[in-house]
Amino acid sequence: MASRLADKRILVTSADTYMGPPIVTLFEAEGAEVLADTDRLIEPDSPAELVARSGSIDGLVVNLDLAAYTAKTVDIEDEPWLAGFDAMVHPLMRTVRAAAPAMIERGGGSIVVLTSSSPLRRMSPQAISYVTARAAQNAFVRSAGHDLARHGVRLNAIAQNFVANETYYPPEMMDNPRFVERLRTEVPAGRLGEPSETAELALFLIGETSSFVYGQVISQDGGWS
Amino acid sequence: MASRLADKRILVTSADTYMGPPIVTLFEAEGAEVLADTDRLIEPDSPAELVARSGSIDGLVVNLDLAAYTAKTVDIEDEPWLAGFDAMVHPLMRTVRAAAPAMIERGGGSIVVLTSSSPLRRMSPQAISYVTARAAQNAFVRSAGHDLARHGVRLNAIAQNFVANETYYPPEMMDNPRFVERLRTEVPAGRLGEPSETAELALFLIGETSSFVYGQVISQDGGWS
Amino acid sequence: MASRLADKRILVTSADTYMGPPIVTLFEAEGAEVLADTDRLIEPDSPAELVARSGSIDGLVVNLDLAAYTAKTVDIEDEPWLAGFDAMVHPLMRTVRAAAPAMIERGGGSIVVLTSSSPLRRMSPQAISYVTARAAQNAFVRSAGHDLARHGVRLNAIAQNFVANETYYPPEMMDNPRFVERLRTEVPAGRLGEPSETAELALFLIGETSSFVYGQVISQDGGWS
Amino acid sequence: MASRLADKRILVTSADTYMGPPIVTLFEAEGAEVLADTDRLIEPDSPAELVARSGSIDGLVVNLDLAAYTAKTVDIEDEPWLAGFDAMVHPLMRTVRAAAPAMIERGGGSIVVLTSSSPLRRMSPQAISYVTARAAQNAFVRSAGHDLARHGVRLNAIAQNFVANETYYPPEMMDNPRFVERLRTEVPAGRLGEPSETAELALFLIGETSSFVYGQVISQDGGWS
Repeated sequence: MASRLADKRILVTSADTYMGPPIVTLFEAEGAEVLADTDRLIEPDSPAELVARSGSIDGLVVNLDLAAYTAKTVDIEDEPWLAGFDAMVHPLMRTVRAAAPAMIERGGGSIVVLTSSSPLRRMSPQAISYVTARAAQNAFVRSAGHDLARHGVRLNAIAQNFVANETYYPPEMMDNPRFVERLRTEVPAGRLGEPSETAELALFLIGETSSFVYGQVISQDGGWS
Repeated sequence: MASRLADKRILVTSADTYMGPPIVTLFEAEGAEVLADTDRLIEPDSPAELVARSGSIDGLVVNLDLAAYTAKTVDIEDEPWLAGFDAMVHPLMRTVRAAAPAMIERGGGSIVVLTSSSPLRRMSPQAISYVTARAAQNAFVRSAGHDLARHGVRLNAIAQNFVANETYYPPEMMDNPRFVERLRTEVPAGRLGEPSETAELALFLIGETSSFVYGQVISQDGGWS
Repeated sequence: MASRLADKRILVTSADTYMGPPIVTLFEAEGAEVLADTDRLIEPDSPAELVARSGSIDGLVVNLDLAAYTAKTVDIEDEPWLAGFDAMVHPLMRTVRAAAPAMIERGGGSIVVLTSSSPLRRMSPQAISYVTARAAQNAFVRSAGHDLARHGVRLNAIAQNFVANETYYPPEMMDNPRFVERLRTEVPAGRLGEPSETAELALFLIGETSSFVYGQVISQDGGWS
Repeated sequence: MASRLADKRILVTSADTYMGPPIVTLFEAEGAEVLADTDRLIEPDSPAELVARSGSIDGLVVNLDLAAYTAKTVDIEDEPWLAGFDAMVHPLMRTVRAAAPAMIERGGGSIVVLTSSSPLRRMSPQAISYVTARAAQNAFVRSAGHDLARHGVRLNAIAQNFVANETYYPPEMMDNPRFVERLRTEVPAGRLGEPSETAELALFLIGETSSFVYGQVISQDGGWS
C-alpha cells in the first residue's frame, strides 16, 4: 500500500466542500491523520482558535470558497463584493498567520492553498469580484511564501479552474449543453478535471516531494490559463 | 502652447497626495478643467457622492494610497491589514462603479488608476499586506477593464514603483545612504522617477492617444519589475 | 502645430511594412527627421551596416514582421520555423547591439520594438512558431532592457495584436464575416485597432515623455491579452 | 517498494547531464524502463531518428542545456547567441514534433521539458542570450501544450533555477563565498535545490498524478521567481 503521508498530521479547512472531500480521502489513503474541519472561518478569531485546538500539525490545507458573484462593473453591490474578501482573503491570511509560528519553530512544514486560475486569464467579464478576491489570495501566497521560505516553511497555491465541484459546477450546469460545448472549446483538455486530480497535486505539494517549491501558484485547469 | 486636453473635464481623487499634485499640474497645463478632490473616499457612499457632484466628466484619475504597512507574516495585525483594502481596493471599485454609467452612456471615457508594480516582482518580504491590496487593484483593473471595454470605456492602471513621493519616500528615507545605495543596485535606472514622469504616462492614458489600450497595467518603475 | 519630436533624428526599420508607415507619418508630423529604411535585415551584417550609415540618431524603431506561419505541432517544418527566428529574433538583437553603443556614450536614447501580445495569452493553437519567436523578442527586450537601463538607454516593446495591417489582416480576411464575428467576441474593444493608435504609443515611448519606462512590454490590443 | 512508474517506458534526452542523471535514477527506482540517450540532438534529423529507434514510449523527458553565455547587450557575438537556440530551442521543437504523433494516436502520453525560470524574473543583466532562448522554450511549451492538450497529450515544463548541477553551478562556483552569500540573499530558501527535488517534480508530471495539468511552466527554484 502507498503510504506517502505516514505519520503526518494534516489540517484541512472547509473539509466538507470544494476540494476538501477528495483531499481528505486521498491524504487518509496515504496514511495521514487528517483533521477535517468544517468551519468557514469567517469570524476573525476562528482561524487562531482552530489552529490552537488542532495541536501539532505537519501540513495545512487552506481550502476556502464562495460561489462566484457575477455582476457587471456598474452593478456590483457592496455586500457580495465584501463577502468575497471576508470568505476567501482575510481567513487565508489569518489561518496562515496562526499556523506559521509552530512550523517556523520546527524549521519546516507545508501549507497548500486552494485558489483559482481565473485571475491568470480573462474570465467571464462579469466575475470581477471573484477574480479580484482570488487574485488577492494568489498575491498573498507569493508574497508571504517568500517571507516564510526564509524559515523553511513552504506556502504554495493550486490555482484551479474547470475542476468538477458542486460550488462552481452544480449538476444543473453540467446538464446544460451550452456549458458542455463551452468546455470543449475553452478548455484544451475538453473536459472538467476530476477532484481527485487536484488532490494528487495537493499531495505532491504537501509532502517532501516538492521540497524546493516555494511561494508558487500552480495552475491546474486542463490548459485553460 | 500644448493643449492636449483642451475642453476636457477630468476628476482627480486624493489630488493633494501621492501622484495627485503632478497630475493636476500637467493636466491643467494641457488645458484641462481639473476637479481636484481631496477626500480619501473611505466611506462607502463617498465615491458615488463625489461622482454625482462632479457633473459630466471626460476622464477620471483614481489616485489612492496608504503608507505601506510592513510586518512579517506571523506579525500581521487585522486592523492595518484591513485598512489597506479599505483605503485602496474598495474605494477603487466604488469610484469606477459610480463613474462608469455616464461614460458608457456617452460611448467613451478613460479612467486611469494609480497602483503599484510591487506585486509584479518580489518585494521586501515584509510588505505582504500592501502587495496583496495592490494586486487586488491590478486584478480589478484587468477584469473590470475587460467588461468596460465592451462599452468603449477605457480602464487602465499605472503600476509604479520607485517614483518620488512623500507617502512612500519621505525625506528621511532619501537622506539614508543605505536607501540610496539600494536604489542604485535594485532599480536599473539607478534613480527615483520624477512625479512628472508619472504624470506624462497618465496624460498618455487619459487622452485619445491611447485609444486602443484597454484593461492594461503598465509598469513605470525604472525597469525594476 | 505639435512638434514633440523637433530636432530628433529617428531610424525606423522595415519602414514600408507592418507599423512602419503610420509611425513614419506621425513622427514626421511631430517634427522628427525620420530615416525610413526598408531592408528586412536578414543578413547578419545588415543591421550594423544600417546603423553605421545612419549616423547619429536619437531614437530607433525596430519594426520586424513575418506573416504568421501556422501549423499544428506535429506538422511544423524546419524551414518556416527557422525563418521566424531569422526574420524577427536575430535581427532584433543585432540591431539593438549595433545602435546601443552610441546611445550609451551619449547617456541616453530610446529604442522601441514592435512585437506581439500573442505570447501573453493563448492564441490559435496553430500559431506555435510565431508565438515562440515573438516571445523570444519580448524576453530579449526585458532582459537587454534591464542591461541598457543601467546606461540610461530605454528599450521597450509594443506588444500589439488586432491592429490593422496588411501582413496579418489582409483585405480578404477583413471581408470574412467569421473573422469579423471573432473580433467582436474575442477583442473586448470589438474592433481592430488603427495603425495610427500604435503610432501614438510609439511616439509616447520614443520621446522624453516615457523617461522612467524601461524594459517594458506594453500591450496594445483592445484589451485582448 | 514504490513503483509508481511500473510498466512505463520513458525516453530521457541528454541523460548524462543537467537533470538527466537524477531523473533516470528516480524513474528507474519507481519501476520505469528508462531509455537514457546522451546525444545533444543538435543535428536537425537527430530527434526524429532518436524517437524512431526508441519504439513505443509512454513518456518523454526533454532535457537540454548549454552553459549560460554571458555578455552585455553590446558585446553579444553571433556564434554563441545562435548556439543557444541550436542547443535548446530547435531540438525541443523537433523532439516534441517527433514524439507527439504516436502519443496522439494512443490518446495519451506526457512530455516533461527541463527549462529555466530565469525569464520569469530579472536575472543577471548579462545572461541575455540564455534568458531569451529559455523564454522561447517556455513559450513553445505553453503554445504547443495547448495544441497537444486537444489530443490528450500533456506537455509541461519545469522552470528551475538554483538547482545544483555541474553545468550551471560547477564546484569552483560553490566554493566561492560571494556566490554562497548571493544564494542566501537571493534565494528565499537560502540554498541550492537538490537534483533529486527536480526529479520528484518530473515524476509528478510524467505520471497520471498530474493528468489535468497541461501546457504549464512550473517554477522550481526555492522561491526565487
